Amino acid sequence: MRYGYFDDKNREYVIENPNTPMSWVNYLGTAEYCGIISNNASGYAFYKSPKSGRLMRFRFNSIPMDRPGRYVYIRDNADGDYWSASWQPVGKPLDSFKTRCCHGLGYTRFESEYRGIKSSYRVFVPIDKPLEFWELEIENTSDKERELSLFTYVEWAFWDMNQDLTNFQYILYTCRMDYQDDIIDYTLRLWPFREPKAFMASVLPVESFDTDREYFIGRYRHEGNPIAVEKGKCSNSIAVGGSPCGSVQNRISLKPGEKKYALYIVGIGDAKSVGAEYKRIYSDRSRVDEEFTKVQAYWNDRLGSYTCNTPSEELNRMVNIWNQYQCHTTFNWSRSASFNEAGGRDGLGYRDTNQDTLGVVHAIPELVKNKLTDLLKGQFSFGAAMHQIQPLTWTQGDHNVPPESRIYSDDHLWLLISIPAYLKETGDMSFLDELVQYADRGEASVYDHLKQALEFSWGKRGPHGLLLGMAADWNDCLNLKGKGESIWSTFLFFRGLNEFIEIARRVGREADVKRFTAYRDEIRESIDKYAWDGKWFLRGYIDSGKKLGGQESEQCKIFINSQTWAVISGAADREKALKAMDSLKEYLATEHGIVKNYPAYREHIAEVGAITTFPAGLKENGGIFCHANTWAVVAEGMLGRGDRAFEFYRAFLPAAKNDMADVYTMEPYVYSQFITGKEHPYHFGRARNSWLTGTATWSFVAASQYMLGIRAEYDGLVVDPTIPHDWDGFTATRVYRGKRFEISVSNPSRVCHGVKKLVVNGEELKGNFIPFDRMKAVNKVEVLLG
Amino acid sequence: MRYGYFDDKNREYVIENPNTPMSWVNYLGTAEYCGIISNNASGYAFYKSPKSGRLMRFRFNSIPMDRPGRYVYIRDNADGDYWSASWQPVGKPLDSFKTRCCHGLGYTRFESEYRGIKSSYRVFVPIDKPLEFWELEIENTSDKERELSLFTYVEWAFWDMNQDLTNFQYILYTCRMDYQDDIIDYTLRLWPFREPKAFMASVLPVESFDTDREYFIGRYRHEGNPIAVEKGKCSNSIAVGGSPCGSVQNRISLKPGEKKYALYIVGIGDAKSVGAEYKRIYSDRSRVDEEFTKVQAYWNDRLGSYTCNTPSEELNRMVNIWNQYQCHTTFNWSRSASFNEAGGRDGLGYRDTNQDTLGVVHAIPELVKNKLTDLLKGQFSFGAAMHQIQPLTWTQGDHNVPPESRIYSDDHLWLLISIPAYLKETGDMSFLDELVQYADRGEASVYDHLKQALEFSWGKRGPHGLLLGMAADWNDCLNLKGKGESIWSTFLFFRGLNEFIEIARRVGREADVKRFTAYRDEIRESIDKYAWDGKWFLRGYIDSGKKLGGQESEQCKIFINSQTWAVISGAADREKALKAMDSLKEYLATEHGIVKNYPAYREHIAEVGAITTFPAGLKENGGIFCHANTWAVVAEGMLGRGDRAFEFYRAFLPAAKNDMADVYTMEPYVYSQFITGKEHPYHFGRARNSWLTGTATWSFVAASQYMLGIRAEYDGLVVDPTIPHDWDGFTATRVYRGKRFEISVSNPSRVCHGVKKLVVNGEELKGNFIPFDRMKAVNKVEVLLG
Repeated sequence: MRYGYFDDKNREYVIENPNTPMSWVNYLGTAEYCGIISNNASGYAFYKSPKSGRLMRFRFNSIPMDRPGRYVYIRDNADGDYWSASWQPVGKPLDSFKTRCCHGLGYTRFESEYRGIKSSYRVFVPIDKPLEFWELEIENTSDKERELSLFTYVEWAFWDMNQDLTNFQYILYTCRMDYQDDIIDYTLRLWPFREPKAFMASVLPVESFDTDREYFIGRYRHEGNPIAVEKGKCSNSIAVGGSPCGSVQNRISLKPGEKKYALYIVGIGDAKSVGAEYKRIYSDRSRVDEEFTKVQAYWNDRLGSYTCNTPSEELNRMVNIWNQYQCHTTFNWSRSASFNEAGGRDGLGYRDTNQDTLGVVHAIPELVKNKLTDLLKGQFSFGAAMHQIQPLTWTQGDHNVPPESRIYSDDHLWLLISIPAYLKETGDMSFLDELVQYADRGEASVYDHLKQALEFSWGKRGPHGLLLGMAADWNDCLNLKGKGESIWSTFLFFRGLNEFIEIARRVGREADVKRFTAYRDEIRESIDKYAWDGKWFLRGYIDSGKKLGGQESEQCKIFINSQTWAVISGAADREKALKAMDSLKEYLATEHGIVKNYPAYREHIAEVGAITTFPAGLKENGGIFCHANTWAVVAEGMLGRGDRAFEFYRAFLPAAKNDMADVYTMEPYVYSQFITGKEHPYHFGRARNSWLTGTATWSFVAASQYMLGIRAEYDGLVVDPTIPHDWDGFTATRVYRGKRFEISVSNPSRVCHGVKKLVVNGEELKGNFIPFDRMKAVNKVEVLLG
Repeated sequence: MRYGYFDDKNREYVIENPNTPMSWVNYLGTAEYCGIISNNASGYAFYKSPKSGRLMRFRFNSIPMDRPGRYVYIRDNADGDYWSASWQPVGKPLDSFKTRCCHGLGYTRFESEYRGIKSSYRVFVPIDKPLEFWELEIENTSDKERELSLFTYVEWAFWDMNQDLTNFQYILYTCRMDYQDDIIDYTLRLWPFREPKAFMASVLPVESFDTDREYFIGRYRHEGNPIAVEKGKCSNSIAVGGSPCGSVQNRISLKPGEKKYALYIVGIGDAKSVGAEYKRIYSDRSRVDEEFTKVQAYWNDRLGSYTCNTPSEELNRMVNIWNQYQCHTTFNWSRSASFNEAGGRDGLGYRDTNQDTLGVVHAIPELVKNKLTDLLKGQFSFGAAMHQIQPLTWTQGDHNVPPESRIYSDDHLWLLISIPAYLKETGDMSFLDELVQYADRGEASVYDHLKQALEFSWGKRGPHGLLLGMAADWNDCLNLKGKGESIWSTFLFFRGLNEFIEIARRVGREADVKRFTAYRDEIRESIDKYAWDGKWFLRGYIDSGKKLGGQESEQCKIFINSQTWAVISGAADREKALKAMDSLKEYLATEHGIVKNYPAYREHIAEVGAITTFPAGLKENGGIFCHANTWAVVAEGMLGRGDRAFEFYRAFLPAAKNDMADVYTMEPYVYSQFITGKEHPYHFGRARNSWLTGTATWSFVAASQYMLGIRAEYDGLVVDPTIPHDWDGFTATRVYRGKRFEISVSNPSRVCHGVKKLVVNGEELKGNFIPFDRMKAVNKVEVLLG
């Protein structure tokens, strides 16, 4: 039930048994070049766009489950036996093939030993160049001299991923491969006359090569038994048309105890110029080491702005390493490409990206500001927003405006969450005055963008005065349409009003304060009248006027989001808030997390939407949607119920699944989109769709801001922990507006919540707030709970 | 270099060595259910539409090259050794595994023998039901009693092929598999609430089953070593979400010499009702035999309308069996789905389908008439045509009208080839008066549709009075646009004018005769003035005014199509025609066929088009496009040069490639789209893209009408052979308007062309023409050449 362990010191997850239930992957690259690599060296790469810049081919939902990838084969020339530097694709029996895969921050390393040959194979992408390094250290631990061949293998994709998958009449007749001076040249000519180029270079002299997949693999063979490796020699094939690949063979001999180093570079650019230059530079190994050092520095910098040390080792390793790593990965790559996202939908999801900023804004506020500006450009002058934007190709115009039926009730409102968070983190109130274009026409200040978002929603209220559900709210599968109303969207709107009123007050826009306070009062009245069902909050009303959720609903009676956001929005009074969260615990919480709704839909209901297409327990229909789980942690944090917050937090915490991996199946070091719910007949507790999920950002927010309780505000920092009562305290560090905080919380009375004493730099302050004017460059903060 | 042979008696192609260079496939099904199956039982199936009705999954351009398919595994329970009824996917060593794959008309059979177990596995699709039969006869040829397990395997696709390839967030959470009474139920719920259903039934009792691919295959395994088969038992897995499959296990014991029969049925419909009913019916094996007999009758009927017996065994087997089989397959499935057409583009290609009628109109004129009506509905009221139509979902309206830049110069003109052919074959002149809707608005008689086609082209002439090339002509990759003119389209137009003038004359529309004769005269003048380059015909003019083709062209100097169609259109005088065809032979003809152009383009030229993107020797750029080769045969046939016609015919004849299969690589029993040309650096002679190609129809037309010379005309049948001089004659049979002809041609003087004497039913007739009024129900025709 366990395949690996956390090596916190080296910030690695170490997979000792490579026969994992699913591919456990890592992301390489941080800027324009993205590589994805599994614990068996499978995966792919793209440049700028996974949709139109796909460099390496990957076969999704295929058999075996992850092929191809970045393979290095090792062959003993004495008897022809061969294996791979990662367990797969050759897949030698694990009793004789010893192997570990170490996923680290921005790199993955495979350590293997077989028949007296030890290899360490490390792949990483440098910070600022569109290429990847494949480093192989190989050592003879036997007592005989050994003659080995090394073979690399990559399968090139045809850049445009949709054509690659379907248009064989065309793509199979486009490539014009070449080879020169130990470098494979990947060139093709695409209509209308583009010629993207890439290369694979070997620093060791090349003995033979293949650029044509057919020759390397052979008839009715696969990556596990390629004919070239079996024969011990490539065919020097040049693909002109056909399926291009890249394989180079090196021959090396190793005396007993001897170690050698091979380096392969795969990257974007012309082989003869760019490739040759990189090969020249990186023939000096120290230059590769420098690149690796830069990658480490990048992650040290990113992750160093917030650290903690609590009694929970699982929480520590997630917050300090993996959760933050996932936050930045999600921020960098949105929902572009993974092993389940094929990359056909690239660019930025509007609501996704707004939320993705929350988990990184403390570390990289400048980059967040740029992303927020991209997002603002996806908002229409009438207030709503594009559901997805492509910043690389964005142009203003009416072509961006979708039909009314494709407008979502929540997309634009997320600006009221992301932008206040940025303002609180940075104090950069001048951002509000910056002029940013709308997606359709015109431009406005950021302040007016926010205002328009609220005005749009104000105009989209239904018969009960609640927000219309429109195409969908955050839950893409609740398609209420018509007169259907979303109580969740209404809560988001309520929270947005609160945020905006605060901003308007701070910038002295009293008319707006008044106007939007009136909106808020009216909305609150509707909520009080129509949203409460006695023991919990409804989810909304459907087009025919029936309640969505609630005792009288025929199928699903209670939903997670309207309970958590009743609290998060500030719309519920404490009594209802507690009752709602207690009902959530009673009906929805399980040992693997909180299901989204209960009982799950069994029959479809057209006016409820796509949620009713999914089998019970999967995805939005009774699945444990991790993103929504984080909000329960936030809500309990806000309510001060630390035991329950931590219970909810840990239930879906990947690190807590390490020893039940055959149930959980996905990576124990990053969040997945969902865990199969209790109503599924077979797979309760099984996760799916890891890495690129809003869970990352909100889970970090929940832990760092609402459990550990360290939150940026406009005028300073709040420290207001909500922790399990059996914690005796914790320490944390944080950077805020360039100042450093070293926070020590002690909990001698074993409470969950309540700051009794706050001492900053030796001086006691009132409450739980450190105002900006009391801050020094480095601050020692002591907090006593009780 | 040889993998199989033709068994003409049984009308089978028998593959003795399954390790073929490419998948050699067959088509099963004739109506709404289509199955494709390779010589290793790989392939897929769809119902009605390969795009939205994809039942079985296939991984295109994958490794191994063709997976999955319709697999039956056989396992010896005594020691656990297992193999498959086809060589792959298990792929036992061929020295111990004896196997043959027999592709027949509408069925494929695998005969294998391994360790004293003989199996004969036959797959076919009945004529009128959406399902397929998998029949397994298994025999113990050893002297011990044997305990065996049989396991089936199919992987279900998610109906919508594009979603299946990319939308894993969705498709992996849609299936709700079930199992009952030896039948696997494949059900899923798709947005918006469709629930397509299919099933796999076993007539023998089921020992165990799997419906979840993960359980059957196992981690890091594949179809070649599924864990269920290795263990000897399935897991009875029910996939609810995930990747659904179908596998049932039967256990059988066989005494020495004993034979047993297993039947599996895979089909469309609800398992519990439809599946159970089929299982009940076909538990009586004689009912399966009846279905098979109907399939044979279908093909006997289709192929029986034209037969020949010539000195060329290769020509005989193609014309009598495989070429006609391919013609009907192409007619039935257009270009929908193959191993290289993924099915994303389904429906009918306009020019393709028009031409596809030519090879079958003598056998199934009524079905051709329906198809022509579908095509007429794809024509616009202004004369041009849709490039593709979807008869299943066609609705009239302006939504069908593409932008001007996407209109082709030839699509609509093919109606002037296909409809006259139908009229000549059937004499059904009343078809001309039938009213058919236009694609955009209104309706008109078929006669007026034809007229509009010509009027449209007349209005689309360029600076030299030749037809504009527009988006493209027949050659999709020649994108002349702007003022670019296509001489090939002009020839097609010229031929169309001839056909129409003839029709107009026959229906007494004298004003039209006059009008279009004037058009023809004017066009002929432009051709005489601007199309001839001294030794051959130009291909056109490009937008900038330069010649396309011709001595002064910088890259490509001569194209095939303008030479052949100069003859076929009737536009060239005999002197130029001969000169042009001699130049074609000199510059373009090779031992593997005639290349499309020479020298191939090396650098791209935007105003010539996509042809200049392809590497030299591939596809349209210097490849041997087989479709275009057939026209050279027609042209030489018309010119009476029988030796050359046959030389051209045989050069690309698949049957003539049987003993050079490692060069040719594709099926020797059906045509491929193209053969790699002489300018390719590595693969001259290698074919690609078999089965669904216009080559089929025109090759049959070339052989039957222009070499054997038996052609339908409005008032009777022409018999005017053009054959190699060393043939001493041939015999042929043909059905024409319900009458039967038994034709015997003798060639004692060893000429290529020229009917010296024609005797019909004992009576000598003048010339080479048998008028309708001299025909009896059965006619004995004797022809003397000389």
